[in-house]
Amino acid sequence: MEIREVFARNLRRTRHAKGLSQEALAYEANVDRTYISSLERGVYAATIDMVGKLAEVLGVEPDELLRRASKPSRSKT
Amino acid sequence: MEIREVFARNLRRTRHAKGLSQEALAYEANVDRTYISSLERGVYAATIDMVGKLAEVLGVEPDELLRRASKPSRSKT
Repeated sequence: MEIREVFARNLRRTRHAKGLSQEALAYEANVDRTYISSLERGVYAATIDMVGKLAEVLGVEPDELLRRASKPSRSKT
Repeated sequence: MEIREVFARNLRRTRHAKGLSQEALAYEANVDRTYISSLERGVYAATIDMVGKLAEVLGVEPDELLRRASKPSRSKT
């Protein structure tokens, strides 16, 4: 699976697990909601700075957002 | 540690572990050597596409290049 798709799935799954809407995540990360929506559809290639910022808001390690589905995820909360 | 620093250290460490020079990695990834040098100094924020491409050349999983040092690394080779 392509890295954007891996990230898109992990971002959406983690956001849902934290009970955050796209709007809430966008607000916390200080980005536009449409950008979050685009990332979750694999439209853009986020930078590692953005991966780090979104991971921080979601309370997970940045590498977990790039992990392929087969491996267990270990979020901090 | 800031995500760029984490990525810079992991990129350099993995490249050395594979016995690749910056030139060789740059050639395989089809980027300029100075770009690899900049990434290894945390000057730029690579996109996840670039992280995926470099991971593929280095034979590791993309998430390993963003993993903080404390956790064990599991490269494929």
